[in-house]
Order: sequence, then structure tokens, then C-alpha cells
Amino acid sequence: MSAANRGVIYMGAGHVEVQPIPFPELALGNRKCEHGVILKVITTNICGSDQHMVRGRTTAPSGMVLGHEITGEVVECGRDVEFIGVGDVVSVPFNIACGRCRNCKEGQTGICLNVNPARPGAAYGYVDMGGWVGGQTEYVMVPYADFNLLKFPDRDIAMDKIRDLTLLSDIFPTGFHGCATAGVGPGSTVYIAGAGPVGLAAAVSAQLLGAACVIVGDMNPQRLDQAKSFGCETLDLRQDTPMPDMLEPILGAREVDSAVDAVGFEARCHGHNHAHEQPATVLNACMDVTRAGGQIGIPGLYVTEDPGAESQEAQHGNLSMRLGQGWAKSHSFHTGQCPVMKYHRQLMQAILFDKVNIADAVNVEVISLDDAPRGYADFDGGVAKKFVIDPHGSVAA
Amino acid sequence: MSAANRGVIYMGAGHVEVQPIPFPELALGNRKCEHGVILKVITTNICGSDQHMVRGRTTAPSGMVLGHEITGEVVECGRDVEFIGVGDVVSVPFNIACGRCRNCKEGQTGICLNVNPARPGAAYGYVDMGGWVGGQTEYVMVPYADFNLLKFPDRDIAMDKIRDLTLLSDIFPTGFHGCATAGVGPGSTVYIAGAGPVGLAAAVSAQLLGAACVIVGDMNPQRLDQAKSFGCETLDLRQDTPMPDMLEPILGAREVDSAVDAVGFEARCHGHNHAHEQPATVLNACMDVTRAGGQIGIPGLYVTEDPGAESQEAQHGNLSMRLGQGWAKSHSFHTGQCPVMKYHRQLMQAILFDKVNIADAVNVEVISLDDAPRGYADFDGGVAKKFVIDPHGSVAA
Amino acid sequence: MSAANRGVIYMGAGHVEVQPIPFPELALGNRKCEHGVILKVITTNICGSDQHMVRGRTTAPSGMVLGHEITGEVVECGRDVEFIGVGDVVSVPFNIACGRCRNCKEGQTGICLNVNPARPGAAYGYVDMGGWVGGQTEYVMVPYADFNLLKFPDRDIAMDKIRDLTLLSDIFPTGFHGCATAGVGPGSTVYIAGAGPVGLAAAVSAQLLGAACVIVGDMNPQRLDQAKSFGCETLDLRQDTPMPDMLEPILGAREVDSAVDAVGFEARCHGHNHAHEQPATVLNACMDVTRAGGQIGIPGLYVTEDPGAESQEAQHGNLSMRLGQGWAKSHSFHTGQCPVMKYHRQLMQAILFDKVNIADAVNVEVISLDDAPRGYADFDGGVAKKFVIDPHGSVAA
Amino acid sequence: MSAANRGVIYMGAGHVEVQPIPFPELALGNRKCEHGVILKVITTNICGSDQHMVRGRTTAPSGMVLGHEITGEVVECGRDVEFIGVGDVVSVPFNIACGRCRNCKEGQTGICLNVNPARPGAAYGYVDMGGWVGGQTEYVMVPYADFNLLKFPDRDIAMDKIRDLTLLSDIFPTGFHGCATAGVGPGSTVYIAGAGPVGLAAAVSAQLLGAACVIVGDMNPQRLDQAKSFGCETLDLRQDTPMPDMLEPILGAREVDSAVDAVGFEARCHGHNHAHEQPATVLNACMDVTRAGGQIGIPGLYVTEDPGAESQEAQHGNLSMRLGQGWAKSHSFHTGQCPVMKYHRQLMQAILFDKVNIADAVNVEVISLDDAPRGYADFDGGVAKKFVIDPHGSVAA
Repeated sequence: MSAANRGVIYMGAGHVEVQPIPFPELALGNRKCEHGVILKVITTNICGSDQHMVRGRTTAPSGMVLGHEITGEVVECGRDVEFIGVGDVVSVPFNIACGRCRNCKEGQTGICLNVNPARPGAAYGYVDMGGWVGGQTEYVMVPYADFNLLKFPDRDIAMDKIRDLTLLSDIFPTGFHGCATAGVGPGSTVYIAGAGPVGLAAAVSAQLLGAACVIVGDMNPQRLDQAKSFGCETLDLRQDTPMPDMLEPILGAREVDSAVDAVGFEARCHGHNHAHEQPATVLNACMDVTRAGGQIGIPGLYVTEDPGAESQEAQHGNLSMRLGQGWAKSHSFHTGQCPVMKYHRQLMQAILFDKVNIADAVNVEVISLDDAPRGYADFDGGVAKKFVIDPHGSVAA
Repeated sequence: MSAANRGVIYMGAGHVEVQPIPFPELALGNRKCEHGVILKVITTNICGSDQHMVRGRTTAPSGMVLGHEITGEVVECGRDVEFIGVGDVVSVPFNIACGRCRNCKEGQTGICLNVNPARPGAAYGYVDMGGWVGGQTEYVMVPYADFNLLKFPDRDIAMDKIRDLTLLSDIFPTGFHGCATAGVGPGSTVYIAGAGPVGLAAAVSAQLLGAACVIVGDMNPQRLDQAKSFGCETLDLRQDTPMPDMLEPILGAREVDSAVDAVGFEARCHGHNHAHEQPATVLNACMDVTRAGGQIGIPGLYVTEDPGAESQEAQHGNLSMRLGQGWAKSHSFHTGQCPVMKYHRQLMQAILFDKVNIADAVNVEVISLDDAPRGYADFDGGVAKKFVIDPHGSVAA
Repeated sequence: MSAANRGVIYMGAGHVEVQPIPFPELALGNRKCEHGVILKVITTNICGSDQHMVRGRTTAPSGMVLGHEITGEVVECGRDVEFIGVGDVVSVPFNIACGRCRNCKEGQTGICLNVNPARPGAAYGYVDMGGWVGGQTEYVMVPYADFNLLKFPDRDIAMDKIRDLTLLSDIFPTGFHGCATAGVGPGSTVYIAGAGPVGLAAAVSAQLLGAACVIVGDMNPQRLDQAKSFGCETLDLRQDTPMPDMLEPILGAREVDSAVDAVGFEARCHGHNHAHEQPATVLNACMDVTRAGGQIGIPGLYVTEDPGAESQEAQHGNLSMRLGQGWAKSHSFHTGQCPVMKYHRQLMQAILFDKVNIADAVNVEVISLDDAPRGYADFDGGVAKKFVIDPHGSVAA
Repeated sequence: MSAANRGVIYMGAGHVEVQPIPFPELALGNRKCEHGVILKVITTNICGSDQHMVRGRTTAPSGMVLGHEITGEVVECGRDVEFIGVGDVVSVPFNIACGRCRNCKEGQTGICLNVNPARPGAAYGYVDMGGWVGGQTEYVMVPYADFNLLKFPDRDIAMDKIRDLTLLSDIFPTGFHGCATAGVGPGSTVYIAGAGPVGLAAAVSAQLLGAACVIVGDMNPQRLDQAKSFGCETLDLRQDTPMPDMLEPILGAREVDSAVDAVGFEARCHGHNHAHEQPATVLNACMDVTRAGGQIGIPGLYVTEDPGAESQEAQHGNLSMRLGQGWAKSHSFHTGQCPVMKYHRQLMQAILFDKVNIADAVNVEVISLDDAPRGYADFDGGVAKKFVIDPHGSVAA
């Protein structure tokens, strides 16, 4: 096996480069990872949360290898790996989990207690998430492989559906988690805030869950068109019309059963003032449009410190939430990283049995590793695409 | 309003007739029902459980008005009715419920404590179910109308979709309940025992719930073809092949995640001996094919006494269940009447927003009231149809 | 039956009086309530949420009859009442519910759609809650009696345990709801913010649910002593010690499994600055002390408008919530009025079978109707008591 | 470390002996277990399911080392063990689980897919359960130690409470699981069939869950007295009185909310004919006494083959279940091994914080390893004790 490797490196605010990096080892610094495997990366996607770092909104250090959405083929197994073998084609949940702590045992793999000394929860190639090397690379190490990896049952079928299956590592489960925690089910009406890839994945998930009507709101007309392309209703939030007035002609009702915040802390005002950041906008809008007794899923990221925020309050993570509005409606709110493992197997089945076309819905575009910087730039510009990096040219055109 | 009325009458084993009956009153014997309404029946369906009575398998008395699947228009309201009005087009859950007892408050409307002196639970036109007059009639009384009735939001749209909406009174929720209690969800593989209307409704429900693969088993080739018509896989149980061997080429696995018994106590042997009744066959088969940790939904009816059964054991309701098989797999079993109200609103939404075509799936055929006896006979003969009686000629051709 | 009646009247900020009021009718203005009953009030409690009004923090109109915690004996039934009879001794859930709308059918009786034209949810004697007459009176009308009332099985036993049973109308279920939505169960460690009656009821509920350790925080030493009296651990929040440092010696851990906010929008700063209102203090503290993956129950009231608040933000109901803290821990948040009916029957059973001593835990003091103004004053002064008004002198000393 | 070891050996029907056995290795035959640890056994309990084997009701081979209820101190760790260390005092769930398969990830550790080639699920020292060596020994090997073991936080406190903590390996969680799956909660009324150690543990669990009234039925007066000793009501099933008639004076009702079958397939008739085996007796009784809408938890073991049964039907595991009775009441049934890991941490907390006295409730008697044969004999004779073997004399008198 070749010892060469290359990856996408964060070079500082607004700047990523593809550079040679070391071939992965079964270790993280001094921590041995005999429970890990080395993957030859088949696909690895650019995520909206990578953009938070690349835009300089975090304390991510220059030189960090990016990428936490990884699908690959196993090329080497640590000695403690028992149920995964060389040649297996696998999906990697973005949240790294030990499978042995209280939280993992309870299925809460997004807040594993053993993979990040600083706090519960870890991820590949992400600031403050345990220091694990990112996967926008040719090769990457995955620890606790028996626990973390989802093996695809058939290699050829997996390669045929790789554009869909690559989305199992993060955004499909993350969008699904937003809907599941919002209580979406057969016959539901659902509002999805944000038509980026996670929002679109939430919309597809709502459909898979049997929702009667899925309504997506955004300010980017391209992204709204993308949502329309698979049967969603849309709200153009650059308008000043109150949201209930926009809902009524669609639903015959001024509220939805469930809402999903797929935007997070970089939210901007609705209406003519929409260039202005206002981090509680989406949360407050979700309370406005969700019926009494409804639930609100919040897969969109909120942070404890945001030095780049406009207001001083927001810089310290304080949001001006109108909680009384939700309280009067007996709302419940569900936050946090999606525990991917809770969903990925079942969503894989939905893909393999042709029940869902997630790649088309989020408009996957496969690019080479060398094209990754262009992908980052285009995505940051608001293009309605999900960029999937194919570092070895494995994906058929 | 005319005081005339006609209905389908059970005349004794194997025999039903359409006869004049009294116009309904807001009462059941001496019990006043000022909480009730009179409906002009728009549609009323023949159900497989009616057949148990008509085949003489129960103690149903001659002269009973049949019918518990009712959709209608309100023509008169009792004085205690507050939120339903004359002219409303409504679906009637087959289970009659008071909305005021412990069970109703817990959503268990199939076992209401106040509508049947003999035991929890009641229904229209059904033996041992409280004596409420059946609805295969021109007019029928519905008690506790504010609680029981589901009002369709728009009359014209309701009439356009009446072939689907008529199935909300029983079989669509009943099939859905089977799947819900069996734990069916996105990506599930599901075995449905029985391709009669409830089995087909369960299959559609599994699809609506996002199942990856729905497999229906029966011995009637017409009904299996009906299941295939909307994308189900099928097992022909006249074959002697063990069921896991039949599942493997479909699923790549010998077991399913969930199973639904849509047959009940009149189950017959699988294989070449399939003319022979064996009431635990379906239950035991469900344990065989369901994975360890799976759940089994049992909407199919089991009875405490079955005088027409072949064996003496079965006559007293004793089934020869191989429970150890299920125990070894940690199965759970979920029985009983579907509490229609738990599901009907959401399933109505799925119909109104065009997410499901239940009428086509179960092959609805609309017939006149006078044709009801023919419908009973054809259905008993095993035709793959769901007969919907249209007593006033309200349904467009 | 006498036509005389008297009640506790809100006369303006800081002022209540006992005055003659009309004997109740089976109506609310023009709305007939033949589904209602008249109760002779046995006990009726003063609630912390009454204090919000009496302190002038709301827009409650002068002249309003107060009181939403009611236990009584039925003296008259409307003609449509079927399952409740004259002489029954009953507990009245503070939330008025029709039993016929979508929310009531789903068990969400705190947000009934048919009892308040202004918004979902109603209560007796409460501002913006539908205009229903309060029950700190000799007689009161309860609508939808068959649905709302919990009948005690035995009158004599009920009178023997009336000091406990009187708490079923609000605070026992409300405290329990806080714990239930916070996920408290056997072996849990729980933080209860606030040692007022709801906080103490939450602490008792946590014990009944099998919690391993219940820790109550407050700034009032009398109330903390009350919490200690039935086995709770306590945190004195006038101290500046960080809360995790206070938890560690109690638990051997710096976080609890679950937290309950039994304070609401009138929260004050922790530490030496504790006289100062800071409405998000308790919410932010709950996020600090709850483990990753934990849940936070919020029975404490938050409002949409609070003209008496210190900051302009808070006057419009905007709280400075540090949601990123909760998001990093995958917290969920559960708000709203307790749907009393979901819990009161089971909690009654726990009282009747001597499994819980809620009256002692919250330190019930029975007072006469004429003493109600003194009860309001003492309670506002922070005394560690729950005042129960006995308008007819029915309660044995 | 000494290489000597001794254990309780099954010698054939009705006969056990203590004999020298090999010191454990980190392997099961050819299967390496570097993920395992060696424990010095502190306590190891005799279980009712051991009795099934010792009575010759199974195909257990002569020479098998018995024992699956194990608490111990770690004396050696495999090289892949990361979070458990030498000196840790730990509880071992009786169900062996890999922590890496679909079922383990879903928390269903009782049906792990990777520890028993014959079927899902494994246990120590048990027939057909994977061949893992039993733990009624001085030393035993525990595989997948990071996943399986529950570490006690403090060694000295653990030793002080070892009589209680030893019950975390099986019967306390098993009894609790019976109650949890039966839906027991605050205010519930519960019927527990069987006053053996699992039945008593279920009764304690019901109390911990807040049940209002716990009623235990058995035919052994000593065991019924034991149940009374901690506040249970009892039914003496040697009587011919119908069970609802026995319940009524206790509850004021003829049915309970929930029932738990803590007996299993060796059930005998109720009433004067109680010497006679009738394997469906308990299941049918549970349906009789459980209210409509209730749930039935079945931790009692049912088997697929029972060569020692009285009837031919029962020899092939066919029970004569009156399922129609349950169906009419919408019962659900929950079977299978308890997944100990789902509960043991929380139950440990309840013990450590003095919320439960499980050892007293089941009447623990600590005996030496050499006394094990006497413990088996006494237990088989029906004594109301739970025998805990202390192979190293570690437990203070």
C-alpha cells in the first residue's frame, strides 16, 4: 500500500488548499487505536459546518486537515477489529464514538465521553472536536471501527448508489434527526428553516417519514428552486409578509405541526433587512409557526462563543430568544449533533431499496480532490449544490 | 327530512338482505344520546369482520343491522353537540367511544368503558359490541359526535376523494395500527400476513411509514396480484417452501424487522395442506420470520369462543402458540382493535395531500345498497376487492 | 341550595379582598355549559402563579375572581353530564379542556382549542385564560365535567386525605410533569431549581419516580429547610460558589441527569447579586448542571410580554439564553402548562395507597376564606408554606 | 496470581459438585478475547434458571460449569481493554454482548448477534448459550469488558453494599424489566406472578417505579410471607377462589393495570390441582387480571423444546394460550431475556443512594463455594431465599 496521502487543509480565514499529508496511522498522538482501520476514501463531502470554520467564525487552527463526511474502503485493520475486514465498503458516521461509555450505550453517539478530553463528542477534522484528522483526503483512520462503521452489504451495488450512500455519513441522518425530534410522521405538516443541504435532507426525510406537506423557507432563490424540484412548497423569506400569512394558502392553516431549524447561529433577519445577522431569528420564527403542542428540531449548530458575531451578546453565545412564545404553546426543543448511528442503517436500506433519492434532492456534484477549493468557494457563494469529493476517481461519471 | 331508512340485515348464516329499518333516533334503547348526530350515509364499506358474522362463526342474532365503516353528512345534531354542525361531511371511527372515561382519555378508544355494558369497547352493527345500530344503511346515528367524528375540511374535495376517505373509518387505520405497533419505520423490512383489505391497507401503511421492503403472504393468487400492483413483494403460501427460504432472495436475509398478522383466528395451514384451519399458524409464522428484537402487530381478530372451530381447543379460544420461539427472540406482541382516532386525522392529511392511494391499493368497488348482498357473496368468495356501498348514489362514477 | 357566594377578588397590584360574588351558573357569558357542574368548594389553594397577577406583573383586570386549584363536591349537574353525579367529591384540573378537540384527544389538555378564543389553553380565574370564573370561592362552575373531573372513589377516605388530594388540581401534577419531561426515573440524579411549592412538588415527584438523589436550589433558607425535611439535598444559591462545585460533594459528579426549572421568568441572579432579576438565569443554570444528553423540564412560567421587567428586552419576553451551551450537550427542553389530566389519576392512587406525603412536603396550611388575603401576603413574603383555603370549614383540624 | 480455580459443575439431573477447573484464559476455544478481563469472583448467585438445568429439564451436558450472576474484581486485562483496569470492582450482566452488532447498538444486549453461533444471545454457564464458562467459580473470564462491565465508583462502598449490588447481574434488572415492559409507573396497580427471587425483585422494582399497590401470587406460603415482609399484598394460589375475587378487596377493583409473569414454562395449575403442570396457566391468568389496555411483561422463561413436559404439545413448546382474551382487551405482551445493561447503572445508583433494599426483599443468604450444592438443594425445595456464593470469603458477615 502506498504511503502517500493528500488532503484539504484549512490555511486561515477564507482559504483552503490541497496538500500532501502523512499517511494515517492507527493512533491519535500517543493514543493507540488498534480498534481502528485505515480507509481508502471513496467519497468525502464538503459540509456547511466546514464553512463556519473556513469563513473564520471559529478558532480552528491553520494547518488543520478538514472533512468529516467520509465513505471508504477498508485497506488495513487494527488487531482489535473483529467484524470489519479489508475490502469492506463502509460509511463513517461523522461523530466519533467509543461504543463503551454510558452515552454510547444509550445510543447518544454524538456525545461520546471517551473521544474528546475537552467535552463530550468528537468529529473528524473539526475544531474543538478531539483533534481527529479530517477525511477530505485520500486515506483516513477511523477508530473503534467495529462500532462506528456501517458496512454496505454489496460492494457493486454500493458503488452504483455511491452518490446517495455518501450522504449517510452526515447530512441525511442529520436532516432526518431534525424531523424525528420534531415529531414528524405520516400526515404531518412541516416547516424546514433553511434550504442548504441539511435543510433539503430534512425535507427529503420528512417525505420519507410520510409528511403530508413539507414547506421550506430560505432567502436564496436557487436553493428554493432546488426544494421545489422534489415536491416541497417554499417560502421566500426576503419578503416582509408574516410567515403565517404565507402558510395559509398552502395549508389552509396558519401553523405547521412541526418545525426544523436547519440554519443555526448564523441566521439572518427575515424580510427586507435580510442581510443583517440575528441569531435567534430562526428559533423565534419556528415558535411563531409551530402549532401549540408541536415540537421543534434544531439540528442547526448553535455555539457557546462566536467572536465574529455582530452583537456583543451573540459573541458570548447569548441569543435573544422569545421563549414565552414557545412556553405558551407547550413547545419542546431538541438540540445537538445528530447521533448518526441511530439512523444510518435504516436510511441505507431506504436507499438500497430505492425508496429515496437523496443525491438528486440535494443536487450532488462529484468533484476531484484538486477541485475541493473551488467547491468550497462555490458552496460559500450559495450555489444549490452538495459537493462530493472523489479523491481516487472511483465514482463513475 | 324523510323518515324512511333501509339497511343491510343479517338473516342467519350465509344470508344478508336489504330491508326497511326505522329512521335513527338520538338514543340507544332507553339511553338518550343528545351528544349524537344523525348522518346521511355517503359511503359504508363491507368489512372482513362482517364476514365472520355472516359466515355464522359468531353468535350474531338474526335481524341485526350490519355495518361499522361509515362516512356521511350530518343532517341532525343533538343538543349537546357543540363543534359539529349540519352539513359537515365526516368520517366515523368504527369504535364507538365516549371521550370521557379513563381509556378514552388515554387514547385507547377501542376499549371505551362507557359504551358497552358487557365489556370494554363497542362498534356499530356488531355482535357483542354494545348493540349500536349498524351503518350499512341510508341513515345512522353516531353518539358522542363531537368526540368521535373527523370532519373533512372541505366538502367538495372530500367528495372528490371519497373512495379513499371512506377507508378512514376502519381498514386504513387498522392496517396502519398493525404496522405502528410492529415498529415499522423508515428502512424497515416488513412481513404482512394476509392480502385481504386489512393486509393490503397494512402494506400501504408500511410504505407510507417509509418501509424499505414490504412482503405480503397469502394463498389467494388474485389478492397477491393486488399486492404486487402497488409495489409489494409477495409470498404464495400454498407452496411448501419454508418462509425464510422464500424471504432470502427478496431481502438477502431470512428474517424481517417487523411482522403484521392481518388474518386472525380463521388462519389456515401453510403449504399443500392449506385448506385446513389451524388458528395459531399465522402467529407462529410471524415468530419464525421476525428477527430477534422485532415486534409483531396483531390487528387480525382473535376470539375467546369460536364454536365453529375444527378443534375442541380452538372452540374455547385456546391456540397452540409456540411462545418459546418468540421468547428466545425477545419479541413483543401487540393485539386488539385499532383505536381509529389515534390515526385517522393524520391519514386523512396524507390522502388530502396526495401522499397515498389507498383506494387503488385495496381495489375499491363502489356498489349500490341493493347490491350489498352480491358484495358480501363476492367478498366471501375471495375476490380481491373492497366493496364500498353508496346508499344514496352520492359517489361520482 | 343557597344562592349566596363569596370569593377572593383581585383589586389591583398588591391587593386582594374577599367579597360577595354571584352564585355560579352553567354558562360563561352567552356560552351555555350544560356539560358543566356546580361545585361546593371543599378546598382551593393559593398558587405561585396567582402571585404573578397579584404582584401586578400581568394585565389582570381589577375585580377578577381568583383561584384555579379547586377540589369540591358536586351540588348540581348540567343536563348533558352523564358520568358525574351530585354528591361526588372531585378534583378539578386547573386547565379547562373540552375533551373534543385535536389537542384534548392527544392528551394535551393544557392547550385545548375550544375554551379560550384568544389562544389555546384556559384556566379558572386567570388573566388571558378564557374568562372562566375563579374558584377561591364557596361555589364554582366547572365545564365539560364528565371530561375534566377526577372523581375520588370514596368520599370519607377523600376527606381524610384532603390535604394531599387538594394538591392534585395543579402543583403535584405540575411538579411531576417537570420531572417526567426531564426524563427522571429510577436511579436519576435531579436538580430542581426553586423550592417554592411547585419545586417541592417536583422534588417529591422525583422521589416517587425513583430518583437516587434530588437536589433543590433556592435563595430562601426556610424553603431550603422545607426541602431538607423530606430528604432532599439543597443548594443555597446566595453563595457565589459555582454550582458544579456545590454538586460534586453531594453526587461525586459535577452534573445531574435531569433538571427542572420551577422558577420561571421572575428568576433572579445567583450569588451575592441575587436581588437582581435576570430572567434567563435558571435556564442557563440548568444547561450548566445537566449532563450531555439530559433533558430539562420547564414547568416554571415564561411569558411573551412582561411590562414589569427590569430590562427592555425582558419586557418583550426576550431572554438572553445561552442556547449553544445546551446544543453542545444535546439537551432537550420541554415547556408549557402541565396537562393535569395526564397525571392526576395515577398520583391520586399514589396518595390513596400511602405512597407519598405531598401535603407535608409542601407544608400545607389550611386557612379560612376570610384569611385568604393574609395567605397571599405571607406567601408573597416567602414563607415556606402552601396555603389551602377551606371556604366551608369542611377540613378537619 | 494463582493458577488454581474451582467451580460448581453440573453432573447430571439433580446433581451438582464443586470441582477444580482450569484458570480462565482470555479466549473461548479458538476465539481470542483480548477485549476480555479475568475476574476474581466476589459474589456469584444461584439463579432459578440454573434450576431448570439442574432439574434435568434441558439438554445441558454433564460437566458444564454453572453460574451467570457474577460480581468481581478485575485481576487481569486483555491488551484491547481501555476503560477498565486491574482492581476495579464490577458487576457482570448475565447476557454476554459484543457492543458492536446491530442489536447491541440498539440496546438489545440480550440478543447480541456475535457471541453465540447458534442464535442471538449468550450467557455464562448456560446450555445453548454460546459455550461461555460459568461464573460460580473463583475466577472467570468476561469478554468485551469495556462494553459489558459496570464499574462501581467506590470499592469500599461497593463491598459494604455487596449483598445488594450482587443482584445487579441478573435478577434485579430482570424483575425491573418485567415491570418496565408491563408499563408500571407511579400509581400503578401491579400483579406479579411468582414469588421466587425474580418475582420478588419485580415487586421491589414496581415499588421503586412508584406503584401504588403490588400484589404477588404464588403457592408457596414462605415465599408469600417474604413478599409481605416488604409491603406487598399477596394471593395464595392454592385456593380455588377466582383471582378477580381475590383482587377486589385489596384494590376495590377486579383487575390490575399491569402484570408480570415471573414464572415461565414450568407453571402449574392454580387451585386445588396445583401440583399439576400447565404451562399457559400464568399467561392466561395474567390476561384475566389485567385491565383492558394493560401490558404484560414476561421475564419468565419460555422454551421452544421441553422434553420433560407432561403433555406432548408442551414438549414441543406449544402452549394452549387463550390469546382471544388478551386481544379483546388490547393487551400487549413483552418477552425475552432482560437486557441487563439497559437498567443496571440506574439500579446501582438507587442502591448506592439507599433508595432500595433489594437484598432484604429477596432474602439473600451468603454461602461459601463449598456450600453451593446445599444452596441448590434448598432453593429447589422452595425455600424463600436467594443464595449468594462468596468463593473467596470476601463478604463481611
